[in-house]
Amino acid sequence: MTDPTGFSFEITARDGAARTGLITTPRGHIRTPAFMPVGTQATVKGMYMDQVKALGADVILGNTYHLMLRPGAERVAALGGLHQFGGWKGPILTDSGGFQVMSLAKLRKLTEQGVTFASHIDGSRFELTPERSIEIQGLLGADIQMQLDECVSLPNDRATIEKSTHLSLRWAERSKRAFETQPKGRALFGIVQGGDIPDLRVESAKALTDMDFPGYSIGGLAVGEPQAVMLAMIETVMPHLPDAKPHYLMGVGTPDDLLGAVACGVDMFDCVMPTRNGRHGQAFSRFGKINFRNARHAADPRPIDEASSCPAARDYSRAYLHHLIRTEEMLGSMLVTWINLAYYQDLMAGARAAIAAGRYADYAAEVREGWARGDIEPMAV
Amino acid sequence: MTDPTGFSFEITARDGAARTGLITTPRGHIRTPAFMPVGTQATVKGMYMDQVKALGADVILGNTYHLMLRPGAERVAALGGLHQFGGWKGPILTDSGGFQVMSLAKLRKLTEQGVTFASHIDGSRFELTPERSIEIQGLLGADIQMQLDECVSLPNDRATIEKSTHLSLRWAERSKRAFETQPKGRALFGIVQGGDIPDLRVESAKALTDMDFPGYSIGGLAVGEPQAVMLAMIETVMPHLPDAKPHYLMGVGTPDDLLGAVACGVDMFDCVMPTRNGRHGQAFSRFGKINFRNARHAADPRPIDEASSCPAARDYSRAYLHHLIRTEEMLGSMLVTWINLAYYQDLMAGARAAIAAGRYADYAAEVREGWARGDIEPMAV
Repeated sequence: MTDPTGFSFEITARDGAARTGLITTPRGHIRTPAFMPVGTQATVKGMYMDQVKALGADVILGNTYHLMLRPGAERVAALGGLHQFGGWKGPILTDSGGFQVMSLAKLRKLTEQGVTFASHIDGSRFELTPERSIEIQGLLGADIQMQLDECVSLPNDRATIEKSTHLSLRWAERSKRAFETQPKGRALFGIVQGGDIPDLRVESAKALTDMDFPGYSIGGLAVGEPQAVMLAMIETVMPHLPDAKPHYLMGVGTPDDLLGAVACGVDMFDCVMPTRNGRHGQAFSRFGKINFRNARHAADPRPIDEASSCPAARDYSRAYLHHLIRTEEMLGSMLVTWINLAYYQDLMAGARAAIAAGRYADYAAEVREGWARGDIEPMAV
Repeated sequence: MTDPTGFSFEITARDGAARTGLITTPRGHIRTPAFMPVGTQATVKGMYMDQVKALGADVILGNTYHLMLRPGAERVAALGGLHQFGGWKGPILTDSGGFQVMSLAKLRKLTEQGVTFASHIDGSRFELTPERSIEIQGLLGADIQMQLDECVSLPNDRATIEKSTHLSLRWAERSKRAFETQPKGRALFGIVQGGDIPDLRVESAKALTDMDFPGYSIGGLAVGEPQAVMLAMIETVMPHLPDAKPHYLMGVGTPDDLLGAVACGVDMFDCVMPTRNGRHGQAFSRFGKINFRNARHAADPRPIDEASSCPAARDYSRAYLHHLIRTEEMLGSMLVTWINLAYYQDLMAGARAAIAAGRYADYAAEVREGWARGDIEPMAV
């Protein structure tokens, strides 16, 4: 049911396990399956927010870890919140900071209470507890927030994964309690952990379902395991999550990962891949990956994809993109990032339309055929 | 007289030595006094060409040295020329490559014939002669081209400056001859040299005037000498250049340099300062220079200038710009570059209007008062 003053999710069509729908927040709708561009430090790297919006993105992600370090959550709140600060007026989802604390911060000390760490920038000390993570996300004004969790790397031993999964469940309860004071309309998601161990994943999903969250994230995947293991874990977890709630696969992934996960019933994604790879000249396209550093583009006057709705893919020659990337010009990073975010949005728009038309399997097969066919041979000039 | 198929210059108003006018090229008009954004490597760093155009820039500059190295003049020509390659449809002016060979290249060897050097990027060997420089600028398709000259640093001894000035005059003749085969409508400018020695400057200006160029550049200034010396050299040269032809002061300068030089009758400028300083967070504004690295902006919710026509100056808080510059986000460089190019264009638009209204001295005084008043005190939040 849609509550215009609150957070809700409506599934509008199904095709196998895949589904398309609409998340409603007070700041606007999110069409699912949705890819969320990553706005780590209150900016989607190399993009103007109006470009991001024009690509069809309904929601962006902000990183609690980075924002608590610079400029600081209290500072953002004093400046009117993250929407006002960064200029993105639609819904914003924030992570809990846990993943970056584990991957970036130094001198970490993890206890039942939370984690203390030193900033990777200047060594200053911080503490992140479930309560502080929720407080920070509240100060940022995030529309969709994440419980604090612990995310272990894979492969790992059962004892480590089990201990971490149980800790994350206790932190889910504390996060939920801390979230109760926040304004109506915001949503807190629980995060399924359990590494690559099916029974731990199921235990986590069931326990979180009992806590009754408005949405469920699947965390701790795409951390080094094969894609098959990732998809198997999603399939293991899905039957134990409420069907009527949104399912968010955190930090994933390649276009192929997205196609696979949508087929399993995932509704939301985020990943740095389109922006990070774009900065370094690797484009995602209907014809697969294209590396603009490659000399084969040097004399090619054609755009990457004249049929694209994205000006960056349509109005600039491959030779020019190659030149900009080779000379390390900012505009090269800007254009390939733009191309990639456009491709990810188009991929999700295609998925939504295909699910609504009951032909998602055909759509996924056609998209994969395009990648397999590969990029067209360069034209000589 | 305006020849729609060719190159011409019409002075539309005068105010003291200052003048405002219109250069006509087959690719469009250039309103003077004009500031030309620098597009070193076929891109104005951090800007989309449509943004540059929207700021009111009529012409951009391309660098022969950089473009001959990467992607190469023959490559650009094969791809349809620099306008097609970089997406700037209006007039383009190119320098001769001489200045960058002297400041960037390695293993230089200068002879009467020209200069051989090694690329600063990969050490590969090149030769630049007056004929090759003009050939390259022709391959790029530049609308306004520069003779090859030798530019010496200041201070320097008379013998060195004199030798270099005379060499540049011989190269002017060779450049002019080489230019004769180029399509109608393009223009070649001679370049006045002579360091900081008045009689050499006058000799150079007279000799070039005798050669009858469609425009005259003043080179070899803003290379380390005080602003007063620069302005004195311009005043020394001006009476010896044809009044009816455009006067271009190369590589200059600060907003104050521009105000001073316009008063002397300079019509065209280029400088990397708005783009280079912008990348590092230093903005030019009606209130003087603003360094966004400075902590005083950290909590300031106000835009840099709400009255600006530039969205970057109007729609983003100082706190956000500070955050982006401190975190070295691309968007910070993009926004402050945009602010600076807008400011330079606005400064020239104001100069044109003031000259037309016969109040240029008042205009310059008002602008300088604004800088002297300085930036408004930060607001506490």
